[in-house]
Amino acid sequence: MASSNGKAAQAEEGKAAQAQEGKAAPEGSIGGYESLHRLLEANLSPELFQEASRLLLGLNCARPLEAIALPEATMTLAETHNFDVQAFRFSADKEFLRQPRVVRVGLIQNSIAVPTTCHFSEQKKAIMDKIRPIVDAAGASGVNILCLQEAWTMPFAFCTREKRWCEFAEPVNGESTQFLQELAQKYNMVIVSPILERDVNHGETIWNTAVIIGNNGNIIGIHRKNHIPRVGDFNESTYYMEGNTGHPVFETAYGKIGVNICYGRHHPLNWLAFGLNGAEIVFNPSATVGELSEPMWPIEARNAAIANSYFVGSINRVGTEVFPNPFTSGDGKPQHADFGHFYGSSHFSAPDASCTPSLSRYRDGLAISDMNLNLCRQIKDKWAFRMTARYDMYASLLSEYLKPDYKPQVIVDPLINKRA
Amino acid sequence: MASSNGKAAQAEEGKAAQAQEGKAAPEGSIGGYESLHRLLEANLSPELFQEASRLLLGLNCARPLEAIALPEATMTLAETHNFDVQAFRFSADKEFLRQPRVVRVGLIQNSIAVPTTCHFSEQKKAIMDKIRPIVDAAGASGVNILCLQEAWTMPFAFCTREKRWCEFAEPVNGESTQFLQELAQKYNMVIVSPILERDVNHGETIWNTAVIIGNNGNIIGIHRKNHIPRVGDFNESTYYMEGNTGHPVFETAYGKIGVNICYGRHHPLNWLAFGLNGAEIVFNPSATVGELSEPMWPIEARNAAIANSYFVGSINRVGTEVFPNPFTSGDGKPQHADFGHFYGSSHFSAPDASCTPSLSRYRDGLAISDMNLNLCRQIKDKWAFRMTARYDMYASLLSEYLKPDYKPQVIVDPLINKRA
Repeated sequence: MASSNGKAAQAEEGKAAQAQEGKAAPEGSIGGYESLHRLLEANLSPELFQEASRLLLGLNCARPLEAIALPEATMTLAETHNFDVQAFRFSADKEFLRQPRVVRVGLIQNSIAVPTTCHFSEQKKAIMDKIRPIVDAAGASGVNILCLQEAWTMPFAFCTREKRWCEFAEPVNGESTQFLQELAQKYNMVIVSPILERDVNHGETIWNTAVIIGNNGNIIGIHRKNHIPRVGDFNESTYYMEGNTGHPVFETAYGKIGVNICYGRHHPLNWLAFGLNGAEIVFNPSATVGELSEPMWPIEARNAAIANSYFVGSINRVGTEVFPNPFTSGDGKPQHADFGHFYGSSHFSAPDASCTPSLSRYRDGLAISDMNLNLCRQIKDKWAFRMTARYDMYASLLSEYLKPDYKPQVIVDPLINKRA
Repeated sequence: MASSNGKAAQAEEGKAAQAQEGKAAPEGSIGGYESLHRLLEANLSPELFQEASRLLLGLNCARPLEAIALPEATMTLAETHNFDVQAFRFSADKEFLRQPRVVRVGLIQNSIAVPTTCHFSEQKKAIMDKIRPIVDAAGASGVNILCLQEAWTMPFAFCTREKRWCEFAEPVNGESTQFLQELAQKYNMVIVSPILERDVNHGETIWNTAVIIGNNGNIIGIHRKNHIPRVGDFNESTYYMEGNTGHPVFETAYGKIGVNICYGRHHPLNWLAFGLNGAEIVFNPSATVGELSEPMWPIEARNAAIANSYFVGSINRVGTEVFPNPFTSGDGKPQHADFGHFYGSSHFSAPDASCTPSLSRYRDGLAISDMNLNLCRQIKDKWAFRMTARYDMYASLLSEYLKPDYKPQVIVDPLINKRA
């Protein structure tokens, strides 16, 4: 806990990095709690909390989730800049022929830094100034691979349908990439940077893109969002279309990673494809709001981790972003100027079906997890989902389904109209 | 609540059918609670319980989950035969061009009725005698479509690898089917009956099969389990192989249903295929034990309901089954005679990402849900997952992946060995 005293001692004692205690409840929080996990922890007896955690986090006795002690520098940054920190370790079985492959992975969630009415250059600078200490905290914690939230350089302005926000788009090697390349090199850290991309070599087309920066500060490659939403205020197809980069897996110094951007998490085939290409960790940088998607948030990433035997890092931005001009939402309600509450709740999911508690629903945060990537193959060997997947049957089915005259396999009750 | 007084009045007052209160805690239950939901209800303030429920059950303010009042006959049967009953209503928006299509759906979970050492004919008879009052309760409640658990006519004996349990296999029109055909006709109810099938027309091959019985007592068709586990004590591939019936959807008097049997729930493509064929409700009759799969249980069915815009009914058997001869489990542990605890927890999931609380982890039970099938198309229109799915990309990918020389799409960091 980031209390003001005894941080070094705390780290030495191996206590968890968790929510800041004793602070005022975040504005809008329910019952003063920042997450479901903390709500239950504060209100259940230790025995019942343990049982609830077992069921909610998918823990089993053989593989508990351990809290990780973080260095004083990290906790000081978290306190100074008022961001949430949580750190947990997933374990794996010992193998005889492979050494453990433990990587430390970080996720950053944040609200925007200044009002959307400020000059665009001021907005960009402010958000970089806000992100830097959180990246520094990740660096100080020895994070190997770090992922930022979707379109982190800007407000999520696509609800407005105003084209002027396109100005925030940058080429792959633009300002935000250069900013993170320096930090990647400084901290020997792979950084996944989801931005609005301006494809200058193809007629200045705009894409929703993740830039993968290597631990030497080099650009390894990019991935463009595969599935584009048309739901609620997510008017993203007004700005960019479906990505054309397939399902690349990036082999970095610390492991094989993929990026399933935002709405792609609703598509099991998208998750599957990264798995078929060998991903060990798939990040899901997102921007999504409570009323629309919160029921799905604890489900989809965990299901993907289970089904594909890889780790998932889920990130959602935080806070409410108010725009200069009001807009309507196609829901019959009056015009309004905000998108709703981005509920944060970033967390990790593991292939053994466990997951970490989530970061705050209200505050910026850094989630850290140690994961032994050997667990991916261990779970593949145990559950044999690949071996039993019958991909041939589904390749045929999808090919048939694509035909305009596809006839679904339906067996009609011949007595259907008899008496019902 | 199945208290001894005032049941009729209770039903009239519209109270919920829920756990029997005031009974001794089930043996082995943690803190005396039968399910996570009841644990939280008993230990959190109403305000916090409401918030926890919102997050856990995926409820949103626009569509609350309502408890349904059941008739006195149902509650009396539940009390007399000591089974859990829960009943909830999922709602949907009003449409202008279609009437609501509300169906009442039931799920039955149960333990075996007599020890596995009893004569096989006694075991079969005892389990039918046990099931009958629960089916009667469903009938008395006006259930339209009822699904039983996987291989409901027998203990889940595949852990033993003993071939003698094959005697429990029956032809599609065998004893258990005839038993349920009578009840289906009596209650004007579609019944899904998962059994061990003896395929007498194909060399007496054994399959894991669901028989779909129409509300007139006729056999509409069958579906055979598509994915067969080889994990833990699930030695099922010793007894039967992957099904050859594709992904049929049965158009019944009450809606289009599919059956994803047990281990098939780990395969998103299996769920997808029933969706592509037009299923509105997919049942997942299962037999699975705590240590192995409980972390996955609340995740996979809900994910399937979300991803495919249909309802899911999940069923798991209950209790510990002890076999006459000990066996080993390939886990280095000594021989033993039981499979572990089947944790029940049957429940429903809806396409809007909500779900019902689960039945008891310890007792037999009947879960009932009213669902307006119009919700399926409403969610398809809202979220547009089909429209945005890019099936062509995945048909191509799977076809490529099937080739022995498939090369995964991997982008290697050229500086990967520089300093990490």
